[in-house]
Amino acid sequence: MRATPIALILATSLIGLPAAADDPPPVSEATEMCLMCHESLHPGIVAGWRSSRHAAVTPAAAMAVEGLARKVSSDDIPENLAGVVVGCAECHTLRPDDHDGVFDHNDYQVHSVVSPGDCAVCHTVEAQQYEGNIMSHAHGNLEGNALYQDLERHILGAPAIDEGRLSFAAPDPATEAVGCLYCHGTRLDVTGTETRDTDFGEMDFPIIAGWPNQGVGRINLDGTRGSCSACHTRHTFSIEIARKPYTCKECHVGPDVPVYKVYSASKHGNIYHSKKQEWDFSAVPWTVGRDFTAPTCATCHVSLLVTPDGETVAERTHGMKGRIAWRIFGLVYSHAHPKDPDTTKIVNKDGMPLPTALDGTPASDFLIDAEEQKKRRATMEAVCLSCHGRSWVRGHFERYEKSHETTNAATRTATAILEEAWARGYAQGPADGGSPFDEAIEHRWADIWLFYANSIRFTAAMAGGGDYAVFADGHYTHAKRIKELQEWLEERTPPDP
Amino acid sequence: MRATPIALILATSLIGLPAAADDPPPVSEATEMCLMCHESLHPGIVAGWRSSRHAAVTPAAAMAVEGLARKVSSDDIPENLAGVVVGCAECHTLRPDDHDGVFDHNDYQVHSVVSPGDCAVCHTVEAQQYEGNIMSHAHGNLEGNALYQDLERHILGAPAIDEGRLSFAAPDPATEAVGCLYCHGTRLDVTGTETRDTDFGEMDFPIIAGWPNQGVGRINLDGTRGSCSACHTRHTFSIEIARKPYTCKECHVGPDVPVYKVYSASKHGNIYHSKKQEWDFSAVPWTVGRDFTAPTCATCHVSLLVTPDGETVAERTHGMKGRIAWRIFGLVYSHAHPKDPDTTKIVNKDGMPLPTALDGTPASDFLIDAEEQKKRRATMEAVCLSCHGRSWVRGHFERYEKSHETTNAATRTATAILEEAWARGYAQGPADGGSPFDEAIEHRWADIWLFYANSIRFTAAMAGGGDYAVFADGHYTHAKRIKELQEWLEERTPPDP
Amino acid sequence: MRATPIALILATSLIGLPAAADDPPPVSEATEMCLMCHESLHPGIVAGWRSSRHAAVTPAAAMAVEGLARKVSSDDIPENLAGVVVGCAECHTLRPDDHDGVFDHNDYQVHSVVSPGDCAVCHTVEAQQYEGNIMSHAHGNLEGNALYQDLERHILGAPAIDEGRLSFAAPDPATEAVGCLYCHGTRLDVTGTETRDTDFGEMDFPIIAGWPNQGVGRINLDGTRGSCSACHTRHTFSIEIARKPYTCKECHVGPDVPVYKVYSASKHGNIYHSKKQEWDFSAVPWTVGRDFTAPTCATCHVSLLVTPDGETVAERTHGMKGRIAWRIFGLVYSHAHPKDPDTTKIVNKDGMPLPTALDGTPASDFLIDAEEQKKRRATMEAVCLSCHGRSWVRGHFERYEKSHETTNAATRTATAILEEAWARGYAQGPADGGSPFDEAIEHRWADIWLFYANSIRFTAAMAGGGDYAVFADGHYTHAKRIKELQEWLEERTPPDP
Repeated sequence: MRATPIALILATSLIGLPAAADDPPPVSEATEMCLMCHESLHPGIVAGWRSSRHAAVTPAAAMAVEGLARKVSSDDIPENLAGVVVGCAECHTLRPDDHDGVFDHNDYQVHSVVSPGDCAVCHTVEAQQYEGNIMSHAHGNLEGNALYQDLERHILGAPAIDEGRLSFAAPDPATEAVGCLYCHGTRLDVTGTETRDTDFGEMDFPIIAGWPNQGVGRINLDGTRGSCSACHTRHTFSIEIARKPYTCKECHVGPDVPVYKVYSASKHGNIYHSKKQEWDFSAVPWTVGRDFTAPTCATCHVSLLVTPDGETVAERTHGMKGRIAWRIFGLVYSHAHPKDPDTTKIVNKDGMPLPTALDGTPASDFLIDAEEQKKRRATMEAVCLSCHGRSWVRGHFERYEKSHETTNAATRTATAILEEAWARGYAQGPADGGSPFDEAIEHRWADIWLFYANSIRFTAAMAGGGDYAVFADGHYTHAKRIKELQEWLEERTPPDP
Repeated sequence: MRATPIALILATSLIGLPAAADDPPPVSEATEMCLMCHESLHPGIVAGWRSSRHAAVTPAAAMAVEGLARKVSSDDIPENLAGVVVGCAECHTLRPDDHDGVFDHNDYQVHSVVSPGDCAVCHTVEAQQYEGNIMSHAHGNLEGNALYQDLERHILGAPAIDEGRLSFAAPDPATEAVGCLYCHGTRLDVTGTETRDTDFGEMDFPIIAGWPNQGVGRINLDGTRGSCSACHTRHTFSIEIARKPYTCKECHVGPDVPVYKVYSASKHGNIYHSKKQEWDFSAVPWTVGRDFTAPTCATCHVSLLVTPDGETVAERTHGMKGRIAWRIFGLVYSHAHPKDPDTTKIVNKDGMPLPTALDGTPASDFLIDAEEQKKRRATMEAVCLSCHGRSWVRGHFERYEKSHETTNAATRTATAILEEAWARGYAQGPADGGSPFDEAIEHRWADIWLFYANSIRFTAAMAGGGDYAVFADGHYTHAKRIKELQEWLEERTPPDP
Repeated sequence: MRATPIALILATSLIGLPAAADDPPPVSEATEMCLMCHESLHPGIVAGWRSSRHAAVTPAAAMAVEGLARKVSSDDIPENLAGVVVGCAECHTLRPDDHDGVFDHNDYQVHSVVSPGDCAVCHTVEAQQYEGNIMSHAHGNLEGNALYQDLERHILGAPAIDEGRLSFAAPDPATEAVGCLYCHGTRLDVTGTETRDTDFGEMDFPIIAGWPNQGVGRINLDGTRGSCSACHTRHTFSIEIARKPYTCKECHVGPDVPVYKVYSASKHGNIYHSKKQEWDFSAVPWTVGRDFTAPTCATCHVSLLVTPDGETVAERTHGMKGRIAWRIFGLVYSHAHPKDPDTTKIVNKDGMPLPTALDGTPASDFLIDAEEQKKRRATMEAVCLSCHGRSWVRGHFERYEKSHETTNAATRTATAILEEAWARGYAQGPADGGSPFDEAIEHRWADIWLFYANSIRFTAAMAGGGDYAVFADGHYTHAKRIKELQEWLEERTPPDP
């Protein structure tokens, strides 16, 4: 049995009266309805929203802003949204026909999961740009690649011993959701409906598999990819939080992608942590030297930057790839950035779904060319040059590109040792139908490129060398693992007769 | 020879005159005496105290506060304390008959180590609640458990080679004090008296073994357990510091209990680090959404929380166990929380002093039952629901409880491999009178549950998945260690004839 | 073809008029010239400088300060510098005859790399003190020590397999620059000149090998050692940043020297992170209890500290060694601090360039004696006593010195195992002409002292025990590695006949 819709109960309340000049901007009647109950049910959510720009500005006012300070990129915001602040109902009842799992809630057609498709109504350009990133395809690129699935199974899967042999089962959804898909994003699916007893009687709600999740490549109930909330955290939608490095740290901190750690131990990170209390993290555009004096992740990869004179240093982009010439982590070798964000299409010369072959040869047809790399590097260099001289910047990039060469050569050496072990039958490699990830020796080989080569490249990329380049998951352990690979091979080698 | 007591020297100074309406609250004559010298001897200590609530409020004033804002839980504060601020002498001369090591200091009977027994005079309920925690028994639970002592010896002990065999001696007290007992707490003992030359001539002081220490289970000179200063740091006794996650980090940061690391990489930690400068960490009660917008450790585990309407979300408790259904670290398998904080009483089905058997069977008689677990989970969920919808919270806890199942099953697999090694005599296990911790292979087995299974559970518990669940001490290395255990066994297995 | 010097273009601009009473302090004509272009070319650099003390105060004004607040230590600042703020030109055109790579830039003789030799013109005492530190010799001590070069090769060098054997080539300069020399400092060399197209036409610039770098032992183009900017970060030259622990973290965070990590998990670090927003990091002198309530790295090792009464607790020193009795990291055994900052002169009893022999015997002739150690310990203890009682401090140092004894004994045990392996020919040691660092087993031996013994000592040194002493790179893994060394030896030992 369903409760009497609250709408009826509250119909006489004083909502939506015309606003005087100094009044706060109008809140829609629907949103006022939401707030009636949810402000006390979930005070944290509502408090977050109340402190947000969405609660303080109408889209119409946002669109009236001229020039670089404008934050809304759509020219065509529906009339019913333009004149009220962006409240609960504006997002959670938007595009009802496009979402699966829309439910009747006090006579409103509500969906729980707001998606980039919804955000795109006002932030059209950003949503389009983001869709072109590998990041937005993080779910599919992992789940649709047989080789990555094999790796995932041998990391997340349930280990079992059967007749003295160790095997790994396919990982269960909960483990995936807390594991790889926490960052990569789950696939959301409506699996049913439940009736819950609430303060207003029984109510029906959809049951959503894969929920909760805020992964960057989440597959939403309207089919869109990603979660804007991954960076623009929850109901504050804050540009400040997105610009601070803790946001990126949520997914970029482990030894496979030690970005936050390297940043924190760099000169940039030192300045950030020492001086951030004096910076303005909300200014749009973001002025170098005035609003901040050292970059955060967003500065180099996303934000619209200007000089104190108002000259543009870098245009805003939610297509982060625009400033990234190389892909330096997660794969056996670093390589030129993929052309297409859907990396499941890539096939290397050995027929594997990888951007390089095991010998390092790039699958060049699927990767950007040297000219595009040069262009992207130049876009990034423009940011560096705000605070560094030309020779400083050039020296930096030379070392960075050299780090690709040296780490890839070392990975080639390590891979040759493993291939020798496969050839001799000490382990079972792909050529014999084996997984390259299911044996201990293969796992130690993966450490070399997935953790150490990778960390070395990040220190070179972010001028955060020193300890992270050498002792903290850098060269020191990189060299050690290679020595151990060789020791393992030699131990198995029969002595000369 | 003893110096003339300072009391005589200073007897004519203007101390303790009656206070006018706007005067600062009165300081006792005894405390003024302390400050005379110690303000210049140890300015940092006195400056800390002067900035504290203890220096600004008398117990009588604190007791006059009505409702949830009241911080003092005793109804019966001795008259001589009630009317003066809580100064040096109030604590350091309190309950002189109960403390060992009380010494005559300028005619005052002083004890160096203030204990929970002293704090309990005003904070009675908190001291009682804390005494019911496993944390307060951290010293005894470690020192009184033969198996943990065996583990401690093979970690902290001095290694030596004798006739080609490696053995570990019992660890010396200094190593224990800097090691396990830094967090678990030392046992304090008065071992003698020394005479020191001071600015006021020679003075006698007790010599205290185990000092300094601020461990959560410290055995004090009055026999009480713990150190309130472990969290309410030193002479500021600050609720602000206790509520910030750096306090918990002091003991909860390593791979065995990576709480701070997981928190910092979670959405909660991101919001905390981005927005904490705008929060009120001293408000009592603590209002969700107004005083803070994301939880710290204290929010979920300790603090009195209310909604902006003043409705209680969670009651204050210093019995942190009240919101904890499971114990997820430090042991071979996760399990329902122990009933009694003294875990030395636990005996599993194999007669070992552990809450589970090596095959995972819980020692259920000593652990809380499913109903109590459900109750504790509900108490915790009430906190979550302040900022999250019901389906979000349920999805979170389902994944969390699933993580127990999967990690415990994996530990079962790992343990079976080790048991096979023991059975074949490749290593010496408990069944043959061996320590389960003294051989390299056993140490690598311990990594699996002590570091990796554990980290996985923390990421599930704290919605801090991603990198910490997978690559940073999570599944990736968890799977690797299991593969290596199996590799080790197979290497030793003679080939089929 | 060269462009018309900007000096001519701008010659009529209003620079350097006499200053009225309230005017900002005068900027030299030359610096105004620099700012004309560079303010828009590199706004971040100029904004940093504008916010600095150097931009706000003339040396003459700085020298007029009396007493402990004075920051300038030279009594003899050249007249042409004294009356203008310390701007671009003041530093970048200083001492042109002493620098290599000086180039003509719009009629000014400019050098890109400002060195401690330049800073010494005003900060004479600090530059002299710094020169006496091991830190200032970090480049030469690494590059001029054959044994360290061998270690560096087997960490940073390019690995290759040749006829089934693994070898490491000497590391290339780019890898060194991002690796060891990021902290140790590169050697700068002018390798040529290039002509660049600029907004003002073609201009010539020197090409500097080893650039960029801010390492503490950088060899500059005037032959001086170090980079003041390593700590007094870039163009803000900030005492605030230098006093915050993020500065030291740039080089002291990895497992070989986990200072920042240990600090952050200590009571000191907890207080710092909780309360720093209320502290004054720029006050000179720095008052205990008023300006700060817990130490940062600088507090204990560098800063001029006073009590609230103005009594000196510790004198300022840029010779950090003055408060350091022991050297606890980077070497096989901890030992008394070296006498001479040039450690390449040290020879141990086995003829190796190390401060101890492989059996732990110190090369005492090259190390400070017990009396000097006692003096340095007392200087450090004076800092501790600002906030801690005598028995607390004594207990702390007893444990710290015990940690040397126990970790060195454990390293002796580990080394004995390796020596046995060398003796039996399972690996090739120095006695047989082998490197002690090129085989996997040797690398695992190095872990014991370079990471774990070391981390244990840091926790003892910094009262940051607990997790970092035991589970996070402390005793737990320390004991494990020793067990594994022994396991490795036993695996190779033929069974008794």
